[in-house]
Amino acid sequence: MPSLPVLVVHGGAGHIPKDRAQISCAGVREAARVGYACLQAGGSAMDAVTEAVTNLENNPAYNAGRGSVLTQHGTVEMDAIVMDGRTLASGAVSAVRRIANPVQLARLVMEKTSHLCLTAEGASHFARAMGVPEVPEESLITEYARMRWRKNLDPDANPVQCMMMGGETPSAPVDTHDTEGKIGTVGAVAVDAQGNIACATSTGGMLNKMEGRVGDTACIGCGAYADNHVGAVSPTGHGEAIMKVTLSRLILFYMEQGKSAQEAADQGLAYMKDRVQGLGGVVVVDPRGDWAARFTSAQMAWAAAQGDQLHYGLYVGEHFTQPITDPKGP
Amino acid sequence: MPSLPVLVVHGGAGHIPKDRAQISCAGVREAARVGYACLQAGGSAMDAVTEAVTNLENNPAYNAGRGSVLTQHGTVEMDAIVMDGRTLASGAVSAVRRIANPVQLARLVMEKTSHLCLTAEGASHFARAMGVPEVPEESLITEYARMRWRKNLDPDANPVQCMMMGGETPSAPVDTHDTEGKIGTVGAVAVDAQGNIACATSTGGMLNKMEGRVGDTACIGCGAYADNHVGAVSPTGHGEAIMKVTLSRLILFYMEQGKSAQEAADQGLAYMKDRVQGLGGVVVVDPRGDWAARFTSAQMAWAAAQGDQLHYGLYVGEHFTQPITDPKGP
Repeated sequence: MPSLPVLVVHGGAGHIPKDRAQISCAGVREAARVGYACLQAGGSAMDAVTEAVTNLENNPAYNAGRGSVLTQHGTVEMDAIVMDGRTLASGAVSAVRRIANPVQLARLVMEKTSHLCLTAEGASHFARAMGVPEVPEESLITEYARMRWRKNLDPDANPVQCMMMGGETPSAPVDTHDTEGKIGTVGAVAVDAQGNIACATSTGGMLNKMEGRVGDTACIGCGAYADNHVGAVSPTGHGEAIMKVTLSRLILFYMEQGKSAQEAADQGLAYMKDRVQGLGGVVVVDPRGDWAARFTSAQMAWAAAQGDQLHYGLYVGEHFTQPITDPKGP
Repeated sequence: MPSLPVLVVHGGAGHIPKDRAQISCAGVREAARVGYACLQAGGSAMDAVTEAVTNLENNPAYNAGRGSVLTQHGTVEMDAIVMDGRTLASGAVSAVRRIANPVQLARLVMEKTSHLCLTAEGASHFARAMGVPEVPEESLITEYARMRWRKNLDPDANPVQCMMMGGETPSAPVDTHDTEGKIGTVGAVAVDAQGNIACATSTGGMLNKMEGRVGDTACIGCGAYADNHVGAVSPTGHGEAIMKVTLSRLILFYMEQGKSAQEAADQGLAYMKDRVQGLGGVVVVDPRGDWAARFTSAQMAWAAAQGDQLHYGLYVGEHFTQPITDPKGP
């Protein structure tokens, strides 16, 4: 039964190695609890999604903030976005470096500038003007991220050619190896007790991406969309495919035409798979508190908090529940 | 009567000063002729929109390529995008500097990388790798752009506060002065003889924008969308408003629901005005060759080429025609 408030988070779609499944599941449950506690304390949907995503950025298990995948040059460039369904206000940063919590910087772009997106050095200068501390790049890089980067990058390769040969060309279907390179984008959607809707997404992008690559996450309508009249979506998966079909806005269009959150999510993901051979996943809410966590990838870590229950899962068809107050998972 | 091929261009929505109306009108007619000649010679829709927008970028009368407006620091940072309706492939660059033709670089991103968008220094490094020459920033700056920049920037102002007080906050309605700062984004949509659809948009962005500001133009679904099954849109106007409603994709959704190009354009622009108080304009085509050039701003320079006729206008309700072979305007 739908009810308010509600919050749903994801920790990224893709193939999650077995040894990382447990921590990936635990992290989204914790982030859902943190965001839901904010809602229960009277916080806005925007506050809740910001807190949930901040929590996931700080968790090194995910490809966002600390734990981000590395670019072809071994650096960390992050994209993040927030959107407020009341006013359609949004803020985003793209290809930003040396920031612990890009989602909070995206929110500052929304709240403190007249713009919707700041990129690269411009975003860094804005962060400095806002008093956001610059952190050492090393503090964002985990041993796991460095190991994967080394494994995937041939140091003699031509950067452009390297990307072209990475199974990433438009004509190449997305296979498990390909999707594995992009696990871990994080996101949240929420409806607060007042019926206001918000969403947030944050990512380190694609493993061994080119310098300056901007994916779906920084792009409104692709990596996020929220509208109080319809609902909100935060996606994860093959960023370029998500962009080609403007996945978040697409799913909300289906909901405007009468589909439920789950039907619209499935229809949007099926369209992305058919039309541009892209796999991914989404978390979705509607204004009544109906929600969905759906994916076409092998796995997606997700968790939802509503009423006194915490819902979560990782593999297709999994849907566990536990009391929200129970701090231990199975 | 719709027919193929067809090409429609715009030279930006806003308030165009009287002394610039004539050159603004002449430029879009020329660009429409250039793009249409490409189609008549058997070129693809993608070739045609690239050539038309390149022509407009090279024309100093528009806010794109040479003639771009300046950032708060007096620099030129440009956004551009192309999209191919056959495959939904797209390429974009954001906040790119010292490039004569950002639309051509956007096309290279689409054709030569697995990504959809490269930003800032990353885009510059890609340009270098592709052999695209770096041009002196001075070559992109016109006396007119510098005069407007000086007029609008208080050198003692706080960069963030300056933007906040510029009548650009979400709560402030878009007035003539505000819109005047953003005239001149250029764009093109086309359907070729094979029924393939493409679009391209290019801009210097918003006058006195913050460093690193990315507007609608680099954002798929906002500053461009093309789908062979539905049509294509290239918009212009208040970039942040266009982003909030994902204007290009929105208009194509209306067309998917049975609206004509003109009805969908008017409905999308009306929604943007009502919901987020944003003014702008669009050029639109559908697969049969039906087209529209519509705007809610005071003016939009536009031209369309179809059959043996060139259509054009600047003020609301204006629709002139002349033989496409006539090199002289009225």
